[in-house]
Amino acid sequence: MKVVTFGEIMLRLCPEGYLRFFQNDKMEATFGGAEANVAVSLANFGIDSLYVTKLPDNPIGRGALSSLRSFGVDTSQIVFGGDRLGIYFLEKGAAQRGSLCVYDRAGSAIQKATREDFNWDAIFEGACWFHFTGITPALSPELVEILQLALAKAKERNITVSCDLNYRSKLWSRDEAREAMTKLCGKVDVLIANEEDVKDVFGIKPGDSDITGGRLSTKGYEYQAQKLREAFGFKYVAFTLRSSVSASDNYWKGVIYDGSEFFYSKEYLIHIVDRVGGGDSFGAGLIYSLLNGKDMDQTINFAVAASCLKQSIEGDFNRVSVKEVEKLSGGDASGRVVR
Amino acid sequence: MKVVTFGEIMLRLCPEGYLRFFQNDKMEATFGGAEANVAVSLANFGIDSLYVTKLPDNPIGRGALSSLRSFGVDTSQIVFGGDRLGIYFLEKGAAQRGSLCVYDRAGSAIQKATREDFNWDAIFEGACWFHFTGITPALSPELVEILQLALAKAKERNITVSCDLNYRSKLWSRDEAREAMTKLCGKVDVLIANEEDVKDVFGIKPGDSDITGGRLSTKGYEYQAQKLREAFGFKYVAFTLRSSVSASDNYWKGVIYDGSEFFYSKEYLIHIVDRVGGGDSFGAGLIYSLLNGKDMDQTINFAVAASCLKQSIEGDFNRVSVKEVEKLSGGDASGRVVR
Amino acid sequence: MKVVTFGEIMLRLCPEGYLRFFQNDKMEATFGGAEANVAVSLANFGIDSLYVTKLPDNPIGRGALSSLRSFGVDTSQIVFGGDRLGIYFLEKGAAQRGSLCVYDRAGSAIQKATREDFNWDAIFEGACWFHFTGITPALSPELVEILQLALAKAKERNITVSCDLNYRSKLWSRDEAREAMTKLCGKVDVLIANEEDVKDVFGIKPGDSDITGGRLSTKGYEYQAQKLREAFGFKYVAFTLRSSVSASDNYWKGVIYDGSEFFYSKEYLIHIVDRVGGGDSFGAGLIYSLLNGKDMDQTINFAVAASCLKQSIEGDFNRVSVKEVEKLSGGDASGRVVR
Amino acid sequence: MKVVTFGEIMLRLCPEGYLRFFQNDKMEATFGGAEANVAVSLANFGIDSLYVTKLPDNPIGRGALSSLRSFGVDTSQIVFGGDRLGIYFLEKGAAQRGSLCVYDRAGSAIQKATREDFNWDAIFEGACWFHFTGITPALSPELVEILQLALAKAKERNITVSCDLNYRSKLWSRDEAREAMTKLCGKVDVLIANEEDVKDVFGIKPGDSDITGGRLSTKGYEYQAQKLREAFGFKYVAFTLRSSVSASDNYWKGVIYDGSEFFYSKEYLIHIVDRVGGGDSFGAGLIYSLLNGKDMDQTINFAVAASCLKQSIEGDFNRVSVKEVEKLSGGDASGRVVR
Amino acid sequence: MKVVTFGEIMLRLCPEGYLRFFQNDKMEATFGGAEANVAVSLANFGIDSLYVTKLPDNPIGRGALSSLRSFGVDTSQIVFGGDRLGIYFLEKGAAQRGSLCVYDRAGSAIQKATREDFNWDAIFEGACWFHFTGITPALSPELVEILQLALAKAKERNITVSCDLNYRSKLWSRDEAREAMTKLCGKVDVLIANEEDVKDVFGIKPGDSDITGGRLSTKGYEYQAQKLREAFGFKYVAFTLRSSVSASDNYWKGVIYDGSEFFYSKEYLIHIVDRVGGGDSFGAGLIYSLLNGKDMDQTINFAVAASCLKQSIEGDFNRVSVKEVEKLSGGDASGRVVR
Amino acid sequence: MKVVTFGEIMLRLCPEGYLRFFQNDKMEATFGGAEANVAVSLANFGIDSLYVTKLPDNPIGRGALSSLRSFGVDTSQIVFGGDRLGIYFLEKGAAQRGSLCVYDRAGSAIQKATREDFNWDAIFEGACWFHFTGITPALSPELVEILQLALAKAKERNITVSCDLNYRSKLWSRDEAREAMTKLCGKVDVLIANEEDVKDVFGIKPGDSDITGGRLSTKGYEYQAQKLREAFGFKYVAFTLRSSVSASDNYWKGVIYDGSEFFYSKEYLIHIVDRVGGGDSFGAGLIYSLLNGKDMDQTINFAVAASCLKQSIEGDFNRVSVKEVEKLSGGDASGRVVR
Repeated sequence: MKVVTFGEIMLRLCPEGYLRFFQNDKMEATFGGAEANVAVSLANFGIDSLYVTKLPDNPIGRGALSSLRSFGVDTSQIVFGGDRLGIYFLEKGAAQRGSLCVYDRAGSAIQKATREDFNWDAIFEGACWFHFTGITPALSPELVEILQLALAKAKERNITVSCDLNYRSKLWSRDEAREAMTKLCGKVDVLIANEEDVKDVFGIKPGDSDITGGRLSTKGYEYQAQKLREAFGFKYVAFTLRSSVSASDNYWKGVIYDGSEFFYSKEYLIHIVDRVGGGDSFGAGLIYSLLNGKDMDQTINFAVAASCLKQSIEGDFNRVSVKEVEKLSGGDASGRVVR
Repeated sequence: MKVVTFGEIMLRLCPEGYLRFFQNDKMEATFGGAEANVAVSLANFGIDSLYVTKLPDNPIGRGALSSLRSFGVDTSQIVFGGDRLGIYFLEKGAAQRGSLCVYDRAGSAIQKATREDFNWDAIFEGACWFHFTGITPALSPELVEILQLALAKAKERNITVSCDLNYRSKLWSRDEAREAMTKLCGKVDVLIANEEDVKDVFGIKPGDSDITGGRLSTKGYEYQAQKLREAFGFKYVAFTLRSSVSASDNYWKGVIYDGSEFFYSKEYLIHIVDRVGGGDSFGAGLIYSLLNGKDMDQTINFAVAASCLKQSIEGDFNRVSVKEVEKLSGGDASGRVVR
Repeated sequence: MKVVTFGEIMLRLCPEGYLRFFQNDKMEATFGGAEANVAVSLANFGIDSLYVTKLPDNPIGRGALSSLRSFGVDTSQIVFGGDRLGIYFLEKGAAQRGSLCVYDRAGSAIQKATREDFNWDAIFEGACWFHFTGITPALSPELVEILQLALAKAKERNITVSCDLNYRSKLWSRDEAREAMTKLCGKVDVLIANEEDVKDVFGIKPGDSDITGGRLSTKGYEYQAQKLREAFGFKYVAFTLRSSVSASDNYWKGVIYDGSEFFYSKEYLIHIVDRVGGGDSFGAGLIYSLLNGKDMDQTINFAVAASCLKQSIEGDFNRVSVKEVEKLSGGDASGRVVR
Repeated sequence: MKVVTFGEIMLRLCPEGYLRFFQNDKMEATFGGAEANVAVSLANFGIDSLYVTKLPDNPIGRGALSSLRSFGVDTSQIVFGGDRLGIYFLEKGAAQRGSLCVYDRAGSAIQKATREDFNWDAIFEGACWFHFTGITPALSPELVEILQLALAKAKERNITVSCDLNYRSKLWSRDEAREAMTKLCGKVDVLIANEEDVKDVFGIKPGDSDITGGRLSTKGYEYQAQKLREAFGFKYVAFTLRSSVSASDNYWKGVIYDGSEFFYSKEYLIHIVDRVGGGDSFGAGLIYSLLNGKDMDQTINFAVAASCLKQSIEGDFNRVSVKEVEKLSGGDASGRVVR
Repeated sequence: MKVVTFGEIMLRLCPEGYLRFFQNDKMEATFGGAEANVAVSLANFGIDSLYVTKLPDNPIGRGALSSLRSFGVDTSQIVFGGDRLGIYFLEKGAAQRGSLCVYDRAGSAIQKATREDFNWDAIFEGACWFHFTGITPALSPELVEILQLALAKAKERNITVSCDLNYRSKLWSRDEAREAMTKLCGKVDVLIANEEDVKDVFGIKPGDSDITGGRLSTKGYEYQAQKLREAFGFKYVAFTLRSSVSASDNYWKGVIYDGSEFFYSKEYLIHIVDRVGGGDSFGAGLIYSLLNGKDMDQTINFAVAASCLKQSIEGDFNRVSVKEVEKLSGGDASGRVVR
Repeated sequence: MKVVTFGEIMLRLCPEGYLRFFQNDKMEATFGGAEANVAVSLANFGIDSLYVTKLPDNPIGRGALSSLRSFGVDTSQIVFGGDRLGIYFLEKGAAQRGSLCVYDRAGSAIQKATREDFNWDAIFEGACWFHFTGITPALSPELVEILQLALAKAKERNITVSCDLNYRSKLWSRDEAREAMTKLCGKVDVLIANEEDVKDVFGIKPGDSDITGGRLSTKGYEYQAQKLREAFGFKYVAFTLRSSVSASDNYWKGVIYDGSEFFYSKEYLIHIVDRVGGGDSFGAGLIYSLLNGKDMDQTINFAVAASCLKQSIEGDFNRVSVKEVEKLSGGDASGRVVR
């Protein structure tokens, strides 16, 4: 069961603990990116996980390569070239102070990649699943074309395609996003999103839910999921549902819609260590479960448990095994010592 | 709008994280002090902030200078001389274990300063506000005299004067405090305090509220504020109201009294990163708001939001902008990622 | 009042903060072990605390010696020899992710100790209390013999004996534990345990309480305590009662049974810094209180307050004074700054 | 005596100690850049030091601002705008392994600055010296124009102009450099360079000296300096002369040519802590000495002593006082403890 | 060109900087082992590098796996099982204080491995070189057998075999070593050693050289190499020649003997960062060169340059590329900045 | 063999690595002081080492206590009281930049101690040696008196007395020092000093040696030692002879004079890690050797080897065993790995 992911991996620079930017002279230098996070998570679940990107042939690019390899991600189809690796600066919030993300990704190797860089036949050899997010086509018009090529190849090979909507307003306008994602979503089987992304990209509003403020209204999500399915014929639509009490405490759950029914996961109150990558780890959990033929209940609960654990872990990557996720999704949230 | 602050800045030595003193061999070495904290906070709000003190002419004193400068605080009126910089050792508490403060400030340069050290005409040139706290006069009888001189000069120039009562029992007795503060408060326009300080310094008891224990009684504060206003003719009396659930979690709000009405802020439940400087950041928020002609509601909510954010930040200094405070005082306490 | 403790001290290797194992290249290297934790806690309470073990004569063993000495623990009866110090790797959990303990203690010096290594007459000279836990006899059959010798000597000298049941399934089977602990418990005066250990070692089930899940049922514990007392004639049976909300938040209380009545402590909701050693600090608090003739109410509240504070402190050792514990057991759980 | 410097300040990311890039997950995040290094050094010498650049209005740009301010550099003429701060990654070498610099500066705010951004009349108000390096015109053709404007204004005001040749082959070709620097050097009074830069930019070869290998030949430098003076009419030409024994040990000296004579400094064998900024600290020492009317011998010895000390200090900035430099240039190189 | 290495990888625990053991509470936790070091070095040279060992299936074993993978080492033939990963504690020396190694490797997974654990046909599929060291057979008699099996298989497949003698007196006696190594060396093509190992294992004394003291005598080595070649028919015998000036400074060179001539490398004076793994990086350089058909001069100079660079790098692993080694072996030892 | 030492222990605050003061926000917080350094060194040599001082009863004083205890120093005669622990700030130099010491010790507990604080009969019970340095009497006139009392008691009990001259110009004038030390030296048996101290305190000049500059002249020292012996009748006079090449490299040797002959040690070129405490470790080595009846050659070589090793170790304390010192004094300075 080989899963292919494609996107941008960045250098992540983060002050220690809860320090503000440049409060001291140290930064944690790790790597991450929406699709890379999914790739690492799947590798940790024991899946044959191939990640495709373009990296600059310098110590920064090789650092990203080494980080991916350390998890056993298959990096054999990564292309080298271009000038720089994208960077994002992250300041972790606490209490009523939210986290800050400063992106410095313009001109990255993957952003300047061309269709000649990727050999989709070689990439898809033996694969059964392809995953990307709405960030990748936002990086350049060429990447919209590349994804269209990739999706066409994927469909030829009967590869299941999943997409996490992931709207980034710094990268493109809503209109650009809608145009590109409408083109791509026709070939997507599984859509992952949250309420805000659906509203931003496709203009489908959930109605009365208020994200910044309090708890979420169920009806709004269900309406959005149904509309999306009608428009694009997705097999499954899955949503992460986050309610922020503060930067330190969040409620977290998920829902999956199979066209006939909505399956809700258990809800967790998470004392957050690092919330970045929460959605990506949900996506990876979903892909793992669907690949392994889990039913809808198991699927949404595994995905939510995986992403709940992610938020207790520093860095973008979800460093958990299937066994650990199943312990939580099986009901043990007590956090007792395992000796 | 130039604001002058005057007081003692100290070297702050704090074990990493939640370690007890000397649990390992590292200490965080930063700087702070009640009035310096106000000065830095105001500089971060874009105010022309002049901080006055006396520093030893050695690497420790120059370290403090450099730290103040890094925020753009105007240090041109700081005087050099004396033997040492005061030090305070801070151990951050967690859960049911409270924080510990060990002061080692005797014999500091500012404590041994004399009235000849400061040229208040030069200091107040162009200023519209002067702020000090009850710690400064507690450092030496000479500093009571110096403050009396400064207040006289300030009044001549129609400079608004604010004072944070800040009683420190290690520095002087209640009787000494009452005598000195009674002298000084006659020239103060805005008094900032909490229930305990008012009781300790002026013997005005709030009645039934129980600080160490649970939630606070409103009536007690209102009574204290009214009595204070009667006694000294303050234009405004503002209180911070802290209820400690544990060292990790505190409720926090504030109230301002304009002589006719009490205006209460929103209350926050804060998951505390570092509570030191909470009162000072409240004072800075208050000064900023009053200087900018905000109404009472805005004023108290801005001050409390500023000080709420401070408690999510390591160190004495409140490293937040007006925009960040207004985001919180405007109602967004969700701590979501800002991308 | 000299208290003797006997057991294994290990090197404790723990990633920084909430990192998973080997997430970065640093580990905190400290020392700990059930009985050593009690010994250190008692030394911090001002008790003359003698700790007995066998350490390898190499830098690792000498590191453990130095750590014990730094607290003023009497190490004069520690024996040197053998090949290695036992190690345990600890990964601290957070939120729904539990802590992990990986033991690497096989072949340690104490595990290979023989009865010739210890001179119980010298060890017990001037002592009034002897404490061990169920981990020590689990290390080797020889240690069961050694403990039988020690207990016989203790009883000759009218030394009070306490034992913390502490079942470790990685070290021996339930049957082995039952056989050995049955032999030893006949000479024990004070038994410390939790519900699970009693069930695992003696097969006495509490009935309906569900540990991994929610809050605990009182009746089950009382039943277990009564059964234990009937079987072994303990003077006191004391239980710690932990309810894990998550790895970050636990409820914590205790109960002591004197044969006629059950005395419950106040319950604390602890925002956990490091939960390892919670039971050991409870034991030390109990020993301290009983040695000092406190009544049952004071005893259980002191023990629980001590162990509540421990869980706000990094490392195995409870770095608190009697005064700090009494402040909490006396009702001040607010965690306010002590200046 | 106000000195103006103009150029690019970058975020400097450097692994801890002698680690290779990404060998662990920490990086030291400081700031530096050729002209900023000179500005900071001059501020540390007590000079009124105004630094001009363009910074992005984000936390990274504000971090650079704060760092400059901490030294008392005048930042009042810094312009805000643009997208990003340039970055350079530095890996410090040791023994036979050289240091590595990876530049990631394309698209920085200063690189995209236009002539409208800077008001040279305001900038030069009260100034007596202007310093820039060959890096600034290499950043964009617009910056060549801006510098031409600045130099014209400087000459109108009789401001002394110094330039450090600093050729960077990653930024422009030798031909581009020669064309631009030839335009600019006509208005330069003091040229600072090393043998390689002169060869690269102006094609003037020193003859037989071999930089990578061993010790340097004197004659080559003298020939280059004379040729440069003939071509551009510089008042002074100063060279730094580095002989690398290894990445850990370098010989370091300098020479200044006043058109009639060559003045050589003492030579130091430096056990290197951080060699970056060595040339910049030499330039600052030179400017300080010439501004203060030192003779040629004092000037070159002060400049070389300053830059010798710099190489014992971490980071780009030379954190030394005039007194410290004079102690070394006065002959005390023993490194004894100053108590 | 696939190279197979086989041996033990250990957890390496090392205090920070030049601290003595347990001088503070932090340790650097990395991985290393003689053959693993060769495998990583070869992978960094771009060789298809397969490393074979047995790891415990716990977080410590998986940490070692992840570390190997991060360099692109092929870990597909690593076997999981057993109880623990071996550990070595390293204290880095400085000046006249030598480094200390404390081994804690008894009972490791690889030490308890049996011949059934390894499938040499699968392992050697496509391989052209097999490397082991004298440490592996020292771990258990079973491993002597396993190596005999492996060597027989290797010879069947015409795989070149290299062995680094690496005598460890803590693991076996000289007699045991001689017996085992005599059995194994018959199938070895390339022997790597130093003077001391040859004396300890085979009793061949170099004559007059004095290792602990000063510089080495050439004749002694040549005598040893000739005797070894006579006894075992090695194709090549290569020696590392270290002269310790102090723990901080070492002379380092090498020699290779092809049966007719001795080829000496350039000698380096190394300011040491971390000397562990120096011999292993020499072995890897040798294997790389011989595999690529370099002549004797190039071979010994590449191997010595590689191992010279290793000693400027923290940790066991040689993190250098072929290009970096060739820069040094090509004569550039100046350690200048590469921009 | 119980040795008593008496003096001031201070908190030592030192930036990490070679950073300048406050270059980042971390400081290493350890403890040290001339006599405490001797006490720790002797405890590490296995001597029964009793250290006497007065400590404040606060977490800083208890930190010092804990540090002393960790080495097994007997702290039973330490007195508690007073306001603060003295502090010294240390910035470690490198290359041509010397180390800086900033003392902040005024008003320390020991400085304000009175003769009632110490019971010399209890302190000297069972002792055979008493050691102090010239720093202790410099702290207050009362301490001169206390030392006179102590020396009188020591002489009554036939306790050998050693004194390290250690002149500190920040604490007293040369005249004050001469007066006090002349009083005390009459009861001293073994004097330890360096050339500068002898000149400063007793005005005995060595003649032509030049300390700051280069290598030392032998004759000057011999002249000083003879003069000292004539004046005070010392049994032994021992000198440390340091020649600073730079802050990173020092030559180091010693000489002892027994009234008839001068015995010189081997000289070491030390690549310095931390030079503070070099003299104290020399004193401890001397005391150890004389106590154990070593001859003059062995004595001076042991003392110098001990102090040579100290300078390879971070912090004030000499963390070496007798075995390690004897390895070096026995001739093995190669710094090879001990496995």
